[in-house]
Amino acid sequence: KRMPSRTSDEFVKGVLQQNRTMLAQTITLIESGSPADVLLAQDVLRQLLPYTGKSIRIGVTGPPGAGKSTLIETLGTYLCGCGFKIAALSIDPSSPRAKGSILGDKTRMEKLARHPQAFIRPSPSKGALGGVARKTREAMLVCEAAGYDVIIVETVGVGQSETAVRAMVDFFLLLQMIDAGDELQGIKKGVIELADAILIHKADGKNRQAARQLQVAFNQWLHLIQPATTGWQTKAYTGSSLCNEGIRELWDVIRDFKRETLRTGTFERRRADQAIDWMQTTIKEELQARFYANRKVQEAWPAIEAAVGSGSLPVRQAVSELLDLFLSSHRDKRDVEEK
Amino acid sequence: KRMPSRTSDEFVKGVLQQNRTMLAQTITLIESGSPADVLLAQDVLRQLLPYTGKSIRIGVTGPPGAGKSTLIETLGTYLCGCGFKIAALSIDPSSPRAKGSILGDKTRMEKLARHPQAFIRPSPSKGALGGVARKTREAMLVCEAAGYDVIIVETVGVGQSETAVRAMVDFFLLLQMIDAGDELQGIKKGVIELADAILIHKADGKNRQAARQLQVAFNQWLHLIQPATTGWQTKAYTGSSLCNEGIRELWDVIRDFKRETLRTGTFERRRADQAIDWMQTTIKEELQARFYANRKVQEAWPAIEAAVGSGSLPVRQAVSELLDLFLSSHRDKRDVEEK
Repeated sequence: KRMPSRTSDEFVKGVLQQNRTMLAQTITLIESGSPADVLLAQDVLRQLLPYTGKSIRIGVTGPPGAGKSTLIETLGTYLCGCGFKIAALSIDPSSPRAKGSILGDKTRMEKLARHPQAFIRPSPSKGALGGVARKTREAMLVCEAAGYDVIIVETVGVGQSETAVRAMVDFFLLLQMIDAGDELQGIKKGVIELADAILIHKADGKNRQAARQLQVAFNQWLHLIQPATTGWQTKAYTGSSLCNEGIRELWDVIRDFKRETLRTGTFERRRADQAIDWMQTTIKEELQARFYANRKVQEAWPAIEAAVGSGSLPVRQAVSELLDLFLSSHRDKRDVEEK
Repeated sequence: KRMPSRTSDEFVKGVLQQNRTMLAQTITLIESGSPADVLLAQDVLRQLLPYTGKSIRIGVTGPPGAGKSTLIETLGTYLCGCGFKIAALSIDPSSPRAKGSILGDKTRMEKLARHPQAFIRPSPSKGALGGVARKTREAMLVCEAAGYDVIIVETVGVGQSETAVRAMVDFFLLLQMIDAGDELQGIKKGVIELADAILIHKADGKNRQAARQLQVAFNQWLHLIQPATTGWQTKAYTGSSLCNEGIRELWDVIRDFKRETLRTGTFERRRADQAIDWMQTTIKEELQARFYANRKVQEAWPAIEAAVGSGSLPVRQAVSELLDLFLSSHRDKRDVEEK
């Protein structure tokens, strides 16, 4: 499982030469938590950064059963046919993924996975959403440096993962399916408000009529809410991966979106805002990670935790003492290094 | 608006003597963000801590219109009549509260506000939920030290504020009202799962019958879900503040809850867990507050933000540089202090 030791230059060269093995190994490096790998990954990302940003980044979400993987396979295969290189990534913070389910992911997109212009990478293994999202975002950048034109990020998990994906993509697609129950039931309104397009999927056979009705209902509702992207009216569409219908039209919508948002400057502005938001989120996570990994904090923790739990030490004072320990320990470390 | 300068001993003595003016001024001190006040408040809380913890802490939530303030007034007045001292606090992170609405709060609980055994304090003024909740929690401790037997914390805001209140109380009450629409419509399931009791309020006049039906529906549903408190079956009750019905029964439920959870140890265990959770939340907030208030970070921020936004500096590296600046600045400061 341990990969061969490489220099940052080797990783960078491999990615820029569009070597798939090196691309996969670079993403593994990024996902690694070992201190040496973290430093190496930081250097690799720094060198790759000038080559990133040229793709269109597409997020795909939707309830279980809406056919997210099927759509990504169909859209991805279509785009490979158009000559594009496609990377499909996913975010699934909830489940610790075993080898089996990693293969499972690839099996689900069997056709796309075999295509030489496609690269499929499942979610980084288990962890908090923050860490999983960070790794996926960095994997996206590495794929861009390796020449992928379209990056598709699928949310596998539920809840907050939609927000995390919206925060890293240009275009956010919500998949819906025809439901036996109420028309707009079971749809989280908050997710609709994040979407740049809604695709009513599996609109084939006897579902065609119901899909059109749902499309009308969505479009009426979408006119009443604030669009996810300034200057872009989110609309509902119908499509079927099974019948290969509405796929080319979906891509036309995405291209229109990119052209229009590039023209108004919204595209670049969102990317800049996303990067800065990202930095702030990372600062928050990293401050905590360093605090809890700090040796002096770890030494003092049990006694302080017990005192706070028993009500003999006020929370405010406990925090103050722990923060002083944390911050002063950096001073000491640096002092030692300087000597 | 500036209060007279006092020593921590004066605040502590005033609170322990159950002086209402000093209690109010101590809470104002706790809510203050000025560095001198922060240190003073920490010292006051440290001295008051041994006198805290003897109350029952009750959280009250419910949709707008369910009659939260009316219930608190009716329950509070009843408890004053039983000889208890009642403090009513509130959490409203969403709205910047002007003088008008502070008075508004008191007017809403006019009768209770005039009672010599009651102390009413509206939500700390505007701010993020974290800060508002911390101040309310500390205000609760000060009220306990001032001899209040029952602390009622009302959530005025929506969304996350229920979770924040649940995290600081022993007993969490959800108010519901009879709705014209579907029986369980508009109720956030997540909030039900936090509740130790559900009171169907305004169960009077022509609502009586509907309230009973809603009670049955809730009780059926409550049997299917995990209770909020281990070993305590959450149930639905009916009541009316207008007719003063179900109020004494509600207090009986709360007393049963306290007796039962004290017996099993759940009561003390939850308080210990809450204090430790609280510490961790405060650590997270305080780390960020200190980071963004740091002079070196503030100086470097504009250039780094611009570089990250334009895509010329990787987020990982930006964070690493900013954290180094933050941590090393503490070293320098300490060095200077020592000289």
